[in-house]
Amino acid sequence: MKLASKEDCVFCKIISGEIPCSKVYEDDLVFAFLDIAPINQGHILIVPKEHHASLTRVPAKYLEAMMRIAPVIGQAAMREIDGDGFNLHLSNGEAAGQIIAHAHLHVVPRQATDGFCWGHRTLSYENDTQRNEMAESIVKRMKL
Amino acid sequence: MKLASKEDCVFCKIISGEIPCSKVYEDDLVFAFLDIAPINQGHILIVPKEHHASLTRVPAKYLEAMMRIAPVIGQAAMREIDGDGFNLHLSNGEAAGQIIAHAHLHVVPRQATDGFCWGHRTLSYENDTQRNEMAESIVKRMKL
Repeated sequence: MKLASKEDCVFCKIISGEIPCSKVYEDDLVFAFLDIAPINQGHILIVPKEHHASLTRVPAKYLEAMMRIAPVIGQAAMREIDGDGFNLHLSNGEAAGQIIAHAHLHVVPRQATDGFCWGHRTLSYENDTQRNEMAESIVKRMKL
Repeated sequence: MKLASKEDCVFCKIISGEIPCSKVYEDDLVFAFLDIAPINQGHILIVPKEHHASLTRVPAKYLEAMMRIAPVIGQAAMREIDGDGFNLHLSNGEAAGQIIAHAHLHVVPRQATDGFCWGHRTLSYENDTQRNEMAESIVKRMKL
């Protein structure tokens, strides 16, 4: 993931209109447009209008606005493709699959027959004690 | 996905304490706990305290609370496993992979070397016109 300043950021250029897009939504805080390389047609990206590479830096009012509109956009995209559901997906950090260094939430409309599958796997914990200890440790690391 | 009433819902039973869990966060609106079948250890589910199968039925204040806390939880879980990033993932509807009929947001801490890969594929649009027409059609379907 190439870190970009606001001036070099492709999503900031889309928001400002410098780069054209197929816009589906805009308000004071968020902007949404069709991904040009979609998992399914109707795949949309919701981005905060303020430039931050990491979601952990995005102010609460933008996070709230992203999530308020996500199910509305998901349902509309699902209906557009006569679909049966939708996924929200966000990658934070290169190890998580983030490519564009401006936080963005994917909204992917799904059909039961679309043939797409998110990867999955199931690891386990040694026992309840180890799992509970990890939970306690995570709580201590939380910056509320 | 088996639709459950609030009384039969496993997540509502976890929230009420009837079923034990490894809790990592709770406030008036949301509850978060370790997934017992994790993609990586530290994989957490964030759920609204009000029972709704579909995210499209979850009131805005719950959506906002889920997304406010998601990056805080993601960062703490990432640090716990000495990780490099995290994913947020949500499946709405059985076709999207939803199994438990109570809306829930997955938070999966990631390491560059964890060997996990989300599925991906890239479809395309016929041309810019078709993509723009789809965007316009999605806008008309949006229930703001």
